[in-house]
Amino acid sequence: MWRYSENPIIERYATPTSNSIFNSAVVPFKDGYAGVFRCDNKAVQMNIHAGFSKNGIDWDINPEPIFMQAGNTEMIQSDYKYDPRVTFIEDRYWVTWCNGYHGPTIGIAYTFDFIEFFQCENAFLPFNRNGVLFPKKINGKYAMLSRPSDNGHTPFGDIYISYSPDMKFWGEHRCVMKVAPFMDSAWQCTKIGAGPVPILTNEGWLLFYHGVINTCNGFRYSVGAAILEENQPDVVKYRTQPYLLAPAEQYELTGDVPNVVFPCAALHSLEEDKLALYYGAADTVTALAFGQISEIINFIKQNSL
Amino acid sequence: MWRYSENPIIERYATPTSNSIFNSAVVPFKDGYAGVFRCDNKAVQMNIHAGFSKNGIDWDINPEPIFMQAGNTEMIQSDYKYDPRVTFIEDRYWVTWCNGYHGPTIGIAYTFDFIEFFQCENAFLPFNRNGVLFPKKINGKYAMLSRPSDNGHTPFGDIYISYSPDMKFWGEHRCVMKVAPFMDSAWQCTKIGAGPVPILTNEGWLLFYHGVINTCNGFRYSVGAAILEENQPDVVKYRTQPYLLAPAEQYELTGDVPNVVFPCAALHSLEEDKLALYYGAADTVTALAFGQISEIINFIKQNSL
Amino acid sequence: MWRYSENPIIERYATPTSNSIFNSAVVPFKDGYAGVFRCDNKAVQMNIHAGFSKNGIDWDINPEPIFMQAGNTEMIQSDYKYDPRVTFIEDRYWVTWCNGYHGPTIGIAYTFDFIEFFQCENAFLPFNRNGVLFPKKINGKYAMLSRPSDNGHTPFGDIYISYSPDMKFWGEHRCVMKVAPFMDSAWQCTKIGAGPVPILTNEGWLLFYHGVINTCNGFRYSVGAAILEENQPDVVKYRTQPYLLAPAEQYELTGDVPNVVFPCAALHSLEEDKLALYYGAADTVTALAFGQISEIINFIKQNSL
Amino acid sequence: MWRYSENPIIERYATPTSNSIFNSAVVPFKDGYAGVFRCDNKAVQMNIHAGFSKNGIDWDINPEPIFMQAGNTEMIQSDYKYDPRVTFIEDRYWVTWCNGYHGPTIGIAYTFDFIEFFQCENAFLPFNRNGVLFPKKINGKYAMLSRPSDNGHTPFGDIYISYSPDMKFWGEHRCVMKVAPFMDSAWQCTKIGAGPVPILTNEGWLLFYHGVINTCNGFRYSVGAAILEENQPDVVKYRTQPYLLAPAEQYELTGDVPNVVFPCAALHSLEEDKLALYYGAADTVTALAFGQISEIINFIKQNSL
Amino acid sequence: MWRYSENPIIERYATPTSNSIFNSAVVPFKDGYAGVFRCDNKAVQMNIHAGFSKNGIDWDINPEPIFMQAGNTEMIQSDYKYDPRVTFIEDRYWVTWCNGYHGPTIGIAYTFDFIEFFQCENAFLPFNRNGVLFPKKINGKYAMLSRPSDNGHTPFGDIYISYSPDMKFWGEHRCVMKVAPFMDSAWQCTKIGAGPVPILTNEGWLLFYHGVINTCNGFRYSVGAAILEENQPDVVKYRTQPYLLAPAEQYELTGDVPNVVFPCAALHSLEEDKLALYYGAADTVTALAFGQISEIINFIKQNSL
Amino acid sequence: MWRYSENPIIERYATPTSNSIFNSAVVPFKDGYAGVFRCDNKAVQMNIHAGFSKNGIDWDINPEPIFMQAGNTEMIQSDYKYDPRVTFIEDRYWVTWCNGYHGPTIGIAYTFDFIEFFQCENAFLPFNRNGVLFPKKINGKYAMLSRPSDNGHTPFGDIYISYSPDMKFWGEHRCVMKVAPFMDSAWQCTKIGAGPVPILTNEGWLLFYHGVINTCNGFRYSVGAAILEENQPDVVKYRTQPYLLAPAEQYELTGDVPNVVFPCAALHSLEEDKLALYYGAADTVTALAFGQISEIINFIKQNSL
Repeated sequence: MWRYSENPIIERYATPTSNSIFNSAVVPFKDGYAGVFRCDNKAVQMNIHAGFSKNGIDWDINPEPIFMQAGNTEMIQSDYKYDPRVTFIEDRYWVTWCNGYHGPTIGIAYTFDFIEFFQCENAFLPFNRNGVLFPKKINGKYAMLSRPSDNGHTPFGDIYISYSPDMKFWGEHRCVMKVAPFMDSAWQCTKIGAGPVPILTNEGWLLFYHGVINTCNGFRYSVGAAILEENQPDVVKYRTQPYLLAPAEQYELTGDVPNVVFPCAALHSLEEDKLALYYGAADTVTALAFGQISEIINFIKQNSL
Repeated sequence: MWRYSENPIIERYATPTSNSIFNSAVVPFKDGYAGVFRCDNKAVQMNIHAGFSKNGIDWDINPEPIFMQAGNTEMIQSDYKYDPRVTFIEDRYWVTWCNGYHGPTIGIAYTFDFIEFFQCENAFLPFNRNGVLFPKKINGKYAMLSRPSDNGHTPFGDIYISYSPDMKFWGEHRCVMKVAPFMDSAWQCTKIGAGPVPILTNEGWLLFYHGVINTCNGFRYSVGAAILEENQPDVVKYRTQPYLLAPAEQYELTGDVPNVVFPCAALHSLEEDKLALYYGAADTVTALAFGQISEIINFIKQNSL
Repeated sequence: MWRYSENPIIERYATPTSNSIFNSAVVPFKDGYAGVFRCDNKAVQMNIHAGFSKNGIDWDINPEPIFMQAGNTEMIQSDYKYDPRVTFIEDRYWVTWCNGYHGPTIGIAYTFDFIEFFQCENAFLPFNRNGVLFPKKINGKYAMLSRPSDNGHTPFGDIYISYSPDMKFWGEHRCVMKVAPFMDSAWQCTKIGAGPVPILTNEGWLLFYHGVINTCNGFRYSVGAAILEENQPDVVKYRTQPYLLAPAEQYELTGDVPNVVFPCAALHSLEEDKLALYYGAADTVTALAFGQISEIINFIKQNSL
Repeated sequence: MWRYSENPIIERYATPTSNSIFNSAVVPFKDGYAGVFRCDNKAVQMNIHAGFSKNGIDWDINPEPIFMQAGNTEMIQSDYKYDPRVTFIEDRYWVTWCNGYHGPTIGIAYTFDFIEFFQCENAFLPFNRNGVLFPKKINGKYAMLSRPSDNGHTPFGDIYISYSPDMKFWGEHRCVMKVAPFMDSAWQCTKIGAGPVPILTNEGWLLFYHGVINTCNGFRYSVGAAILEENQPDVVKYRTQPYLLAPAEQYELTGDVPNVVFPCAALHSLEEDKLALYYGAADTVTALAFGQISEIINFIKQNSL
Repeated sequence: MWRYSENPIIERYATPTSNSIFNSAVVPFKDGYAGVFRCDNKAVQMNIHAGFSKNGIDWDINPEPIFMQAGNTEMIQSDYKYDPRVTFIEDRYWVTWCNGYHGPTIGIAYTFDFIEFFQCENAFLPFNRNGVLFPKKINGKYAMLSRPSDNGHTPFGDIYISYSPDMKFWGEHRCVMKVAPFMDSAWQCTKIGAGPVPILTNEGWLLFYHGVINTCNGFRYSVGAAILEENQPDVVKYRTQPYLLAPAEQYELTGDVPNVVFPCAALHSLEEDKLALYYGAADTVTALAFGQISEIINFIKQNSL
Repeated sequence: MWRYSENPIIERYATPTSNSIFNSAVVPFKDGYAGVFRCDNKAVQMNIHAGFSKNGIDWDINPEPIFMQAGNTEMIQSDYKYDPRVTFIEDRYWVTWCNGYHGPTIGIAYTFDFIEFFQCENAFLPFNRNGVLFPKKINGKYAMLSRPSDNGHTPFGDIYISYSPDMKFWGEHRCVMKVAPFMDSAWQCTKIGAGPVPILTNEGWLLFYHGVINTCNGFRYSVGAAILEENQPDVVKYRTQPYLLAPAEQYELTGDVPNVVFPCAALHSLEEDKLALYYGAADTVTALAFGQISEIINFIKQNSL
């Protein structure tokens, strides 16, 4: 994978009130792209904003946060919203994010147009982060990855999967991937969490994820990838021992939280064998990296834990 | 409330392999009583054992832990089991407990006879403790209280409710009760968790719960009670500002974990206006306290936070 | 020193609402004694109560906390009150205690009769505990010992002195005594704090104080004593290397906070060469120890750090 | 507000022995400016140095620390000195700083000429930081803001006010401003502390202050402002929900303590409606930001918590 | 194993200056027994004292600590001494203990008569505890078990072995036993350390050891045992999953450190198939338990991890 | 001292698999230089690699880690290797490093040609780091400096010396240098550790070492130096109060661990009075600083603690 030469593509002060714009979700929409963006404002309140782009690089982000209407239930309390993911299933776009309900848990909403959004029941009890839907039902049920957490700067974190018949009640929870032993792969030894919506390939689900190491000067977030079994995605077929991308550029090394690359979305074309990974850098700006899907898959298979 | 004069009713070494027997669940069964008991063995492994009694005081506890068969799913991993609760709903006895599945979460099983047990899907993702079912469906759904936790000696804890149409998928999570401010009621300022299965009274659901304060020499667990709205049990009508029972006897002040009284079951008769509360003492032995239901309810209403 | 054979003299449930009665201050008053008592109620709210006794052992404690009127300022916020000390200066009894004003600090009040109390300005900014007045002015100014703290179970603590011309503005802060090195006197190596009001003797001020060691199972509080220079009490003439009294009886070893003996008052007669030390045991009950003043002073001088 | 284009104005190695020069106080003096500068030397000992400037930008800083003579008392121990503020009251310049006296507390000195300095009694007991005098007496008394702290990297901190008739004895302590709830204004949710000497405006006292958030990679210090009631400055009329200035430039993002902007002085002219804010960047260098006072006040009023 | 009915055999105040007497080492000596006792004095300074007994139960302990002369080197600094073990090898008694040399490490001394003691080089760098010699050379070298530690209440701890040709230089360090997984044997999941000098049996070396669990109210110390390979004692043949002895009596549950049983010596007769285990209780007193060696070995083999 | 203008001399991605190359050891070898380099790979596994250079600046580093053969014992487990030092004694090059054997300890190996390496017994029990051999025997024994540690990001650390007759058994441990008091020299107040192999000069052994301060945003590593007595190197003759080199350049301030300069090797010529110090920067890259030996020694003597 290689970084876009014009990184970062979205600056921290790109909207009038923003302190930082990062960890954001992007999907193809109409003849261009739509996205849901994490914008912390200058009070450092976390919220999600809709945006549109013709080319996926130059974005028009709404300076107002998304206004939610009631979806499949009464309106759910939401003290804050951050780290969105977006995917299209059947007839609509589903947004998941970290929702503040007496602590972080997984919020769910749907939209047809990125203008009106309908908020549904939270998937889980607190405390949880990094809820990521699969882009289609599996064995007839919606499937969601998530990372059970606690109520602070969680120093642990593994990836689980849960299923739902109706996007309201969730169960059949299974552990998918745990942190790696320090000696095997230290960049992912403290916590891991799903990144972009998984991509279905011939090998199975391609899942980018972030891994964290706790250095003596704080957490460092890198990017790895795994291949999950298509019909039983709690089975990990392969998983990168080395990272794919780690903080090395100045906009990744410095910012509100130094040493963070955090992927949340991936535009891709299996036909053209290419992929554009959107990631937050230093919890401050949004950046882009490119790669060939086949090459990434080969790398995962040849460098698997 | 007053303590039974012959406390503790179950000693720590009451079975050949036990290190401690406490935090145990008791229900009327046939012409006597049945129970599910937390017995830590001398390797300090935590498991649950079935037992029977004619009078509710003298117990015959199986020295072998409960053997689980698959219930509504494949067999779920269970690294350990502790702090059971039992209730009868419709046609069978449901047992919930803290189940070790990559950390503590809520295990569920059913039995018809306290001999054969059928283990079902865990209700939630880790990390969770103190899962307690209501003894009947509410608005057509099973309802469960629980306390989201982390993976250690959780220093926080509030009570939530979740619903399920089928004992498999859970949702509609709502916060029920949070810890009290230190200055209002310090004994319950660190964490709280549901105790016995709630009892339906004229005033609503009578819920005994434990509350914890963090002294400079560790956690201290006391017992309080609340009244929840019958049809919307996330609404707390009353809740005790003073505790009902706190560690004061030698078998509560000393043991494996000093200064713990932890209620897990309550036999009761609304007609006779009486109640027997089973509680673990010092994480070591099982004890009993008695009370008049009407008096307890009055106390809650007159001493509500 | 030796313990009173009938210890504890005040039980934890001695008033209808009390959870514990300890760390309490006693003075001669009229033909008997008056006192200000720390009573935590069953909500574990901390407050101070007045009490009277004929013999200093059997106490009549007001079940209602002390009601404060405005003293030398508007009424000061007081979220909680604990650990009182009392002394007579010139024309009235002064009470100091740990006062909850955005955290613990030193509250001050005066009374003439232990019925009406007048609350004055707090002596210091938070965070502070164990404020103890000298029983007479020194060099024309009121003098107070205290222990700067933080907002939790403070893991550090030394004794300072401050002066005031008027019981309102305080300054000339000096360090008096610091914790002892672990290797010299481990029982007082974590924190120390003044106990009863100092007693003027021929050798100088006799100060009982508590010292704390942090064992692997929590804090342990013991009692030592020091002699301070009469006219310059920030000069420590002698200070006990061994403790005078440490937790050893069951009512000191078990209770809400195991392993605490905490002195707050001392009745004494220099003429009769005797002293009665009131101390809280296990943060639960009030106990009494006796000693000969001359013997104690000799012990301090012969066993000085 | 906007940054000076030539920032930083004082480099870390600007004196022969300095490791860093930051958090420094500047006032108009004669036909130019004088200042008291925090210079950590290459042993990383913290001390304060006097300096002079014609234009407020190019500074001549004494490589020797300020030598103190006894002021209103005997010489006070001073293990270290840092984070000075300076203001003129009546007939002299008063300097306050964080003074090492068995831990950090507030040191006070006065000077007439920035050559001879006279050290007075410390205002408070340890532990305290960010002591800032008002530039005139309020209701006949000196008034000082401060932030009670503990003895390490204090993870809490609110702003209090205290009064003194004589710069020696202090009392009438009142809480002025507390940290903001995380969800309302996260940049100031961990601790806050007064910055430059308050500026009297038509709206009241204009107070710049720093606010801190604890990210998973450490503390981040930003700048906000408040308006306090002129004659009762413990009343906060307005207070910025968004920050005014936060770390974003390379010299603020990297250095001895990354992600710090810390204001300690403000030159201003109400007539010309302008203000120059001196701030430490990354605990390493000194920088400058400019603003219009009227615009800042409007911003505070329109963006108040 | 069963406890001696007259426990504790040595009270905390058994010598004039002692605060506690526990964790002590006993060997047959002449027609009776000699021992080295940990006596903390009333300043809570830790030291070791010699003692003699006719029957192993009634002890005459020297109120003065052991005076050391230089052994195989210059006199080594010793800030404190605690937790001794004693064994006879070839021609003399060797004492090992936790020696304060810039932190805890393993001190070594020898004596012929328990009157004169000769202190040798510390075996290891700090930080270490629980150094226990084998009672004969193994493959021509002295062999010592120890538990690398840190400088506080170490929250980890495994048992290692090291060898020495000369009691001065040590090497060939090997890991012997690590803590058990929480789910397999929680009582020994936090730290373990060798107890008495190993006993050579037909099965190999019988090693009693302590294991620690960290409950929410602190550490709890229990006793287990293992069998090590005779000629390669870093090979563990068997090791108890259940504990042999855990705190359950009042003198074990309460004291300076509640919930501690800590074995340091074992008198034994293989011929008579019996064993007397000396252990410290609650870091306060010394107690005794008895057992049959054959039964203990069978238990270990049948209940091995 | 001054930095090389072309720093860093080795980039983080200088080998195909490297994540970072730093903390590396360099010696003269044949007509050029050889070195042992810490290369963390992209799985962030730590290992040491051999390399060669003609000029000491441009390095050819083997992308494969060093393969070890058994030296003076069977092959020792090595979970990871980092922070090597190299020195020539008598007939071969000795390499020491931090070796993963149930935690960090000091690994030892020798080589004649930097192609074949022979691994010997670890010097010490875990936990230890920064083991540095003296380049010749002292009083007939090998001598090694080390820093006892714990099993994480050790927050303490002093320098000790140990001796060995045979590179296998170690003893005669003595404390050499401890951290400095915060107020005397804060940059070295948290931990210190030996850097390059000591250099014998007329004044004694010149020892560069790293010192660490714990700021509110993590550890900061700087470089100082000391002079040790030639024949009794646990005697410190001089030691710098100011640092010699501290993080100030962008490649030192940002990277995997910001704010680290960590010296591991020094090429030097006493005749030419010059020295080249190799140091790791930000735990990411390798950099170089130059100095005159006489000037450095003078500086140490004139700025000694």
